[in-house]
Amino acid sequence: MIDAIFTHRSIRQFKPDTISEKDLNLILKAASRASTTGNMQVYSVVVSESEEVKNQLWEAHFKQDMVKQAPVVLTFLADFNRFNKWCLQRNAQPGYDNFLSFYTASIDALLAAQNAVLQAEELGLGACYLGTTTYMAQKIIDILKLPKGVVPVTTVVLGYPNETPELTDRLPLEAIVHKEVYQDYNEEDINRLYAEKEALESTKELLKINQKEALAQIFTDNRYTKKDNITFSKLLLEVLEQQGYMNQ
Amino acid sequence: MIDAIFTHRSIRQFKPDTISEKDLNLILKAASRASTTGNMQVYSVVVSESEEVKNQLWEAHFKQDMVKQAPVVLTFLADFNRFNKWCLQRNAQPGYDNFLSFYTASIDALLAAQNAVLQAEELGLGACYLGTTTYMAQKIIDILKLPKGVVPVTTVVLGYPNETPELTDRLPLEAIVHKEVYQDYNEEDINRLYAEKEALESTKELLKINQKEALAQIFTDNRYTKKDNITFSKLLLEVLEQQGYMNQ
Repeated sequence: MIDAIFTHRSIRQFKPDTISEKDLNLILKAASRASTTGNMQVYSVVVSESEEVKNQLWEAHFKQDMVKQAPVVLTFLADFNRFNKWCLQRNAQPGYDNFLSFYTASIDALLAAQNAVLQAEELGLGACYLGTTTYMAQKIIDILKLPKGVVPVTTVVLGYPNETPELTDRLPLEAIVHKEVYQDYNEEDINRLYAEKEALESTKELLKINQKEALAQIFTDNRYTKKDNITFSKLLLEVLEQQGYMNQ
Repeated sequence: MIDAIFTHRSIRQFKPDTISEKDLNLILKAASRASTTGNMQVYSVVVSESEEVKNQLWEAHFKQDMVKQAPVVLTFLADFNRFNKWCLQRNAQPGYDNFLSFYTASIDALLAAQNAVLQAEELGLGACYLGTTTYMAQKIIDILKLPKGVVPVTTVVLGYPNETPELTDRLPLEAIVHKEVYQDYNEEDINRLYAEKEALESTKELLKINQKEALAQIFTDNRYTKKDNITFSKLLLEVLEQQGYMNQ
């Protein structure tokens, strides 16, 4: 049993302690051992530790304090730029300026990110993924000076935990696992699978604070609204176009 | 140090031994502990073990033998279907029929997949990711009966290894790691970073077999051609449209 997997919780508050170069190196090495498509390794990681860059990233990530507080911010990038340059220098014509290639590179970046997070946690560090990376891709491109062929996929803040949150609830395993083929959900299934989540004390508190009658409404009306999703979808597709991933 | 990370190699040949229910359960549980966006868990896993379904998946995955040989095939899905149903039953209006939501759900699915792979390897199992999942998304949708809001992201074949391949080469860490902001590559950088890979005995053999003068050309001309990428990009975007992820 890999302890880091089963004890994982997102950490958003960090001690000021820095991460040793040795540990950081092991974390990045762990990232690099993940499977990648055809061993092309079409991803990169930017390691930001300076106040200057972290402050800019903090702005981009909706001013979430953890970005400033964490000693290390890792931005994982879908990156065909390096591979394309290699091809061109070897008289090979790269054909990776399309959506499939972007998606392939995203997969590479995400598997590497999860390796990094688990290895960091095994060293006693805490981590949190930032979903704001895709919302604010354009701003992050500007801050990190990403050339064509490079798109930010996810961000991980890393540091020594200054909080010890409980494990987060999960839906029962049967909610996410399907036998042989997809087993679609009927009304009763949904009620059963979400019952535990809806009965949590933390859910009840959320309903009170947000004056909502159901937890689902907090997601649709407050946290992940249609309006925001549409806006950020358009922006992300524009970024893909601009970074050279939507040619046909 | 998490051994499973540093000893990982893709396994493509499996013994006939099945995976115990207990082990499979631990692997799926590991998947479910991964971080997901806002703890929405907008992914699913299909566990296919029957000859019937595996044969169909084998067809879809370019008839790669490992799909038939592996006792277990896991297909990881971006899945807002369950979440949408929950919202609708709770008088909440889901706004997740857009590209950002698809990408969010893909991230959830991939982090879960990597947890599953590492936990499987820790149990002595071998695994291989199948990139053919996105190429053949439509066929896999048909085979696994995926409803609207569900798109296959990646596939993992699992079983007891019947081969012991060496660790695969990786570019030096400096190739994928950037300090503070992106450090773009000049011609010398590229030559230096790819030198070791190009000097491998296995590379020399590949060049002979494929009658090519450079490894990069094997990627562009044989393995991942522009023509295929364009074709599969169009198909994948059509699939996103059809599965309800491209509304604006």
